[in-house]
Amino acid sequence: MPPVLSIVGKKNSGKTTLIEKLLVCFGEQGYRVATVKHDTHRFVIDHEGKDTYRHQVAGAAAVLISSPQKFALIKKTGSQLPLDELVNSYLGEFDLVITEGFSAADKPKIEVVRVVRGAICSPEQLLATAGPDDPGMNIPHFDWNDAESVCRFIINKMLD
Amino acid sequence: MPPVLSIVGKKNSGKTTLIEKLLVCFGEQGYRVATVKHDTHRFVIDHEGKDTYRHQVAGAAAVLISSPQKFALIKKTGSQLPLDELVNSYLGEFDLVITEGFSAADKPKIEVVRVVRGAICSPEQLLATAGPDDPGMNIPHFDWNDAESVCRFIINKMLD
Repeated sequence: MPPVLSIVGKKNSGKTTLIEKLLVCFGEQGYRVATVKHDTHRFVIDHEGKDTYRHQVAGAAAVLISSPQKFALIKKTGSQLPLDELVNSYLGEFDLVITEGFSAADKPKIEVVRVVRGAICSPEQLLATAGPDDPGMNIPHFDWNDAESVCRFIINKMLD
Repeated sequence: MPPVLSIVGKKNSGKTTLIEKLLVCFGEQGYRVATVKHDTHRFVIDHEGKDTYRHQVAGAAAVLISSPQKFALIKKTGSQLPLDELVNSYLGEFDLVITEGFSAADKPKIEVVRVVRGAICSPEQLLATAGPDDPGMNIPHFDWNDAESVCRFIINKMLD
């Protein structure tokens, strides 16, 4: 099972932007990284009228669409599957898995914090923080534009 | 590995409609069925602006989004993965896998045929045909509105 890192933070704190920058850094260094997003709503990823959508509506328990570039699998579960089960079953071949959200999962975490809004995690729960200003939690803090340093920190902590 | 049945036929012959009807029939009888669609083009299943889309563009080799109802996994492959590999790796737990297309794969097939347009497979390659009229191929033929009979035929041939 690959190491799993969670990027957590309040809504609109900048999690996706930090993950984008990290993905570029890891890619430049040859790491193969997968991401997992937690969605509490009913996400829409397939669309009315498409054949795969029609299969789902008609009762397919899973739909897989495969092309020469990629494939997509949509599986009905009836419950939120545990993160470890998802990673083990579907992402075992990657060097690192970065989750967006999943703050309740017991994984190493970096929180994107804006000082005025406060953090969702306590310092003990975090490897580090990232943001425009150091929230003063007595743990490593990175400027959120300096993804190279965050990437190096993750490699040292989790991949070396 | 579950049995795999391919519904094949020319473009716009009615494959998706037959599959929809079959999914309803199998569902009523308690079978858990997954579908696989072959796509020769660059299918779009995720959309600009969504977090998962941004992850992919930034270089994630795979993106998984998970909710309490379902999850979706999009994995870059760089080549068309063999059908058996997809079924083995991702759809092992289902009772039956129905593919739409994949006429080149060596799986039991039912072709949706319209007599005036002709068939893509020879009778030796098919379990049966379905359509508005019997194409006279000397193999079992089903009216395409009679999905119950097609379903029963598949159960007898492949699931009993």
